[in-house]
Parts: sequence; structure tokens; C-alpha cells
Amino acid sequence: MPKGLIVQKFGGSSVANVERIQNVARRVASYRKKGYDLVVVVSALGDTTDELIELANKINTAPSEREMDMLLSTGEQISVALLAMAIHKLGYEAISFTGAQVGIITDASHTRARIIKINADKIKEELKDGKIVIVAGFQGVTMEQDITTLGRGGSDLTAVALAKELCADECEIYTDVDGIYTTDPRIEPRARKIKKITFDEMLEMASLGAQVMQARSIEVAKKFNVPIHVRSSFSDNPGTMITKEVKRMEDVVVSAVTLNRGEAKITICNVPDEPGVAAKIFGELARAGVNVDMIVQNVSHTRQTDISFTVTKPELSKALKITRKVGRAIKAGEVLRDEDIARVSVVGVGMKSHPGVAAKMFEVLAYNKINIEMISTSDISISCIIQRKFVEKAVKALHDKFGLGK
Amino acid sequence: MPKGLIVQKFGGSSVANVERIQNVARRVASYRKKGYDLVVVVSALGDTTDELIELANKINTAPSEREMDMLLSTGEQISVALLAMAIHKLGYEAISFTGAQVGIITDASHTRARIIKINADKIKEELKDGKIVIVAGFQGVTMEQDITTLGRGGSDLTAVALAKELCADECEIYTDVDGIYTTDPRIEPRARKIKKITFDEMLEMASLGAQVMQARSIEVAKKFNVPIHVRSSFSDNPGTMITKEVKRMEDVVVSAVTLNRGEAKITICNVPDEPGVAAKIFGELARAGVNVDMIVQNVSHTRQTDISFTVTKPELSKALKITRKVGRAIKAGEVLRDEDIARVSVVGVGMKSHPGVAAKMFEVLAYNKINIEMISTSDISISCIIQRKFVEKAVKALHDKFGLGK
Repeated sequence: MPKGLIVQKFGGSSVANVERIQNVARRVASYRKKGYDLVVVVSALGDTTDELIELANKINTAPSEREMDMLLSTGEQISVALLAMAIHKLGYEAISFTGAQVGIITDASHTRARIIKINADKIKEELKDGKIVIVAGFQGVTMEQDITTLGRGGSDLTAVALAKELCADECEIYTDVDGIYTTDPRIEPRARKIKKITFDEMLEMASLGAQVMQARSIEVAKKFNVPIHVRSSFSDNPGTMITKEVKRMEDVVVSAVTLNRGEAKITICNVPDEPGVAAKIFGELARAGVNVDMIVQNVSHTRQTDISFTVTKPELSKALKITRKVGRAIKAGEVLRDEDIARVSVVGVGMKSHPGVAAKMFEVLAYNKINIEMISTSDISISCIIQRKFVEKAVKALHDKFGLGK
Repeated sequence: MPKGLIVQKFGGSSVANVERIQNVARRVASYRKKGYDLVVVVSALGDTTDELIELANKINTAPSEREMDMLLSTGEQISVALLAMAIHKLGYEAISFTGAQVGIITDASHTRARIIKINADKIKEELKDGKIVIVAGFQGVTMEQDITTLGRGGSDLTAVALAKELCADECEIYTDVDGIYTTDPRIEPRARKIKKITFDEMLEMASLGAQVMQARSIEVAKKFNVPIHVRSSFSDNPGTMITKEVKRMEDVVVSAVTLNRGEAKITICNVPDEPGVAAKIFGELARAGVNVDMIVQNVSHTRQTDISFTVTKPELSKALKITRKVGRAIKAGEVLRDEDIARVSVVGVGMKSHPGVAAKMFEVLAYNKINIEMISTSDISISCIIQRKFVEKAVKALHDKFGLGK
């Protein structure tokens, strides 16, 4: 009798060369030997995707998104074929499939398609046949048989969606780090690996700059309650479990401190304090596809106010241009930019019932003489924009004061 | 009104790098500008296929043929996407498809699949829409949606089969030579480009070692009477037309001289001259998949005879092993090998009505003191096996004496 079904996902760095592909094959085979049914989702080898994008850009700086998907989907197709061969070499039965072949049906939004449904019959059939099923991550197909890709973090999404569709017992995401940490270990060496974390906390961390998994896959995992195990493809140590609820021994208020240095701040000064003004500014930005993150507007005591917001650095110049245009139209004042900022956040489901967290965070920053430029809060996180040069100091101090260290 | 439909096929060397892809795009666009409907078949970029095979062999020296097809088919998928982008850049509408997407249905003989049928509706639809349709060569899909490849020369086959299915007005095969020559110009600089040649002559030439097109595609072209234009992707000069019948101004007896240095000879001595002996030898070789080419057995005046045959060099050791085994079983004598041979052939539909061709060929070789080891004839060709070191001399002499030079 099979012990259960595991969906395993291996990222590009886990299959970057022949040796690593063989390493993945050995891991998959060892699970098979233990009696598990296995569906393995693989990303493109190492930097293949980036190399293909570069090649495309040499030919056309604005390539058709449909053709881009046609091109990029080859990366995962190469990976699955090679992994199948490596598993065969170890004496186990395996069969590889493209996204199209296993019926991962998406909409037609090329380069960022959304999964509509999965016809998992083929996978079920092959599993029944005793085979390890290897599926190309990151890709799907429209009802019209056009190949699509799912955008950044797409292979994680493939794994989570398959785990849901197949009612898998576990979904393992193998990566080059061995789990989720209380903060970035490159900044704070005393950072601890988190054993268990909730979907909500992970979602906050993903959107606040933790780069292990994309928010989108976690959202889907949360929606369908698919437990995820994030772990390293280079060791056998358990990683971090992401689940719906986490029963913790102690009353942990804050689970992690995150940071993000990838944003810039725009301030539009002396905005007339009239209804509809914010809608005009952010409506224009949205129409141009600019993703605005934090927005702060103070209550105004005069007839004018300042509005500040953050965008990712690659979108800064586009956002500035639009903001200046709208600024002139609504007769606002100067538009300022600041790229030397960083965001530091504390995350934890525990803070819902502990109103003192924000105050404590501000105290820690003040004690360290770090000025807070913007504040934003959610149910389970508090974020502050500070000067970029203070970010390491802030992370270490918060990590220490909230008791996250080893 | 469209001027007509042309199927154009570009080989790997024609799309080996960005510059060459752009070159192909310009050529395709120029035909579109003239008003032609276009279906473009493309091979994998340069050495991609060989690189993928090498990668696979590092992982598994005997890779599954199904997975090999999964792997290799990515090569053409990359080419079609990039060519579509390059054509878009020139301002023309184009859309790329895999073999599976345009319904090139094959049997399940992976790595050497045969086309069963083509559901060309999708192509017709896109042509009607005014688009240039770009199709990945060399690949198809089984009824069960498994990806297959068509084996050596597969992209030519894709082009010819599509030209037939779509009732194209012409099928152009672009390659790195500018047509079919009266002999190999590297050996005989006075070789001339042949303007027109029949399917039968081209078939003989292909099987006798001319490497411009595989025999298989020419067979299909002959079967369905699809005229082929073999020409260079690096120039605008007309190449060689391959058609059913060629009306020649003069009475050309011999069209070309071909050579093949890729074979070796096996001789099995003192074979008992009894019925069924040849069947035993060549039956065993066939069962082992060894392709035997020329076979010579002299009429025997004793109770024993010698049988000689040629095989391709990569199959020599396998063929020797089998021949020795059968030799012992039938109580024959020694089995000899000779790798230092070459085949030289004269080809031409004209020789059907000119019985003196063979005699003239033998005279030319004798005059040049070249010994003939084996002779084989067909309706439109005569081949001699000679010592390898004499092959250039033989080719030049025959090319001259049959009046093929400039």
C-alpha cells in the first residue's frame, strides 16, 4: 500500500547542473523506496530562463508575450526530461510531462497566466501505474492550446496547485536555503530557522521582502489549506512548515523581522486637500501598471497636505513621470524622490492580541536614534520606512528586543 | 489576392545565431511583401540538438527514447519563438507553433516517428488571418499527446509533409549550400550546380552519400509530387529544383557523380553454396537492426563462394560480431573487414536508355589504374567500391569523362 502522496518542487538552483540533477534524482528515489507516491515539479536549469530572455531581447526588445511563453517554457521541458533520465538511471520508473500535457489550463494572460483548472487524470493514471510523475513547473496551456507561463514563482504555484488537485499529503518546496528564518541571516547571524509558521505570517513576510516563496503560491496554499514544507535540496534537515494554524509552546508575539531595500519613496507636496485627489493620483498610477506599496497621507490642518508612497525601484522613473503630470493637473507642489530608504517590518500572528507591539517597535528604533519616515500596519505586521543606512542596525535591534535570537 | 502559398524550411545552420535568425526573418518578410502566404519550418539553432544529446548522455548513457524526444523537441521550439519575434520586429504578423500544436500526428516510434496525418486546420486559420505561420520542424505528437521526433532530416520531412497537406505552390529547402552539384565541389572545383533534377535521381544521390537532403523527405515529395527548391539561405541565387520529370535541352546521360566514404566492407569467405545461406546471414543482421547496403555474391563454380557486403562504419563492429557468429553456425570460413574503401557512383535517369554507361565507367576507372572491388547497379545509378585512397581521382575522372564539368 502506498504511504501517501507527496508533491516535491525543485527550483532552478537545485537542478543547475548534471550533478545536482542526479542529487535530486537520488532524493526522489529515496522517497519512492520508502513507499511514497510522488509528483515532482521542476523549474528550468539554473539561469536558463534569464539566458533565454537575454537571447529574445537581442532579437526584439519588446517581444510578443505569446512568443516569450513559447520560448521560456522550453526551460522546464529540458529539466523534466533530464530528471526523468536521471531517475531511470537509478532503476525507478518515471515519466515527464509539460504543463500542457498534464492539463494545467490557464487563462490567456501570457507571461503571468492564472490557472483556471487542472485535469489531473493523466497524472493519476501514471501514479496508479507506479510511476514517478515529473511535471514542468511555471507553465500551462490555454483552452486554445497556446502555451502560457505563470510568472515569477510560477513553479511553486504549479506544485501547490497540483498538491491541492491531487489531495497530496504534503507539498515540499526544495530551495537553496533550508527554511524560513526569523530574519535575514546575512544581516543577523543569530537568526533562527522557524519550525512552523502560518500562511498569514508567510504571506506578510513574502510581501515584505522575504524571497523564499512568492506571495501568490502562499495565497493559493492558504485558500485550499495545502501544508507546505520549505526545505533545502542540499541537506536532509527538516525546514519550515507553513500551515493554517500553528500551536506554539510559548506565546510568541512576533515571528520574524523582515527588510526590503528594493523600494523608493515619492512625496507629492502641497496637495489640495479636496475629495478625489488621491483617487486621481493613484488611479493614474494603476492605469500605467505601477504597483504602489505603502501610502501615507497625514490629516491636514490647512487646506493642503503631503502624500507619500513607495514603489519598487525599477518602476520609480515611470511613477515619477506620472506623479509630476498629475501634480501639475491638480495644482499640487513639488514632487520629491528618495531612493535611500528601506523598509523594516515585524511580523507575527501573536500581535493581534498584543497591542503594545507597535509601541515597542517605535521605542526600539528611537532608542537606536533611527528616524521613522513612514508607518504602515496590518493585522499581523508593522512596517516602518527608515533611512537605508540604518536598516541593518534596525533589524538587529528589533530581532534582539523581540526575543527572536538563538 | 495572395500570390500563392510557399513552405520554406530553414536548417540549423541558417538560424545558428541572432544575426542569421534576423537574416531569415528578412527573407521571409520579403516574400510576404511580394504577396505570398508563408508557412516557415525551422530546425533547432546550430548545434543545440547535439548539445542536448551530450547533456542527456552525461545523465544516462541509454536514455529513454520518449524522454529524449521530450528533451530534443525544445530545440525547435526555441527557434520558432525567436524567429516569430524577429519577424514581428520587421513589422509583419507571425505566429509560432510546436509540432503538437499544429496537429502533426505521428506513431509512437520515439526518435524516429512516422507522420500519420496532419490536422492543418489551425495553420489554415492563421494563414487566412494574414499571419506568417512558423512551425517547429522535426517533431510531432502521438494520439496520446506524447511528443515525438522524426529522426534525421526530420525538419525537411515536416516541410514536405506540410507542403503536401496545404497544397503549397512550392516547397523551398534553405540550407548552407546553394543547390545540388554534379559532384562534391570540395573534391572537384569544376563541379556545376544542377538546375533541375528528378526525384529519382535525387533519391539515388541521397542514398549514395550526397548529404543535402535525406532520402526520406525526397521519397515523400516524390510520392505526393511536391516540387522542391533546394537553395542557400545566404544568397538570392536560384538553387536546384527537384521535380517529377525534367525536360533537358540536351540528352544528358549522367547527372552527377557521388561518393561515400562512410562505409566499410565485410567479406565472409568459403560460404557453403547452399540455398538459405544468404537468408541466414542477412536475416540475423536485419534482426539486429544493421543496415546492409551493397551485397555481392559471385556465381560459384565450386561448392563454396565468398559473400561481400558493406555497412556504415558506426555499425561495423556490431555487424562483424553477428557475421562471425553466423559464419561459425553455417560452417563458413574466415570473416574479413576492410575500412579503407569508398564508393563512387554515377547517377542519371538518362542511363536507362544508354546501356554503355557502365562500360564507360569501368573503362575510366581502369584507365586510371583504379581496381574495382564491388559493383552494384540500379535503374539510374552504377556504384563501384574502390580503395579509399583513389576516390578523389575517380570522382574527378568520371566527372570529366561524363562531361559534367564547367
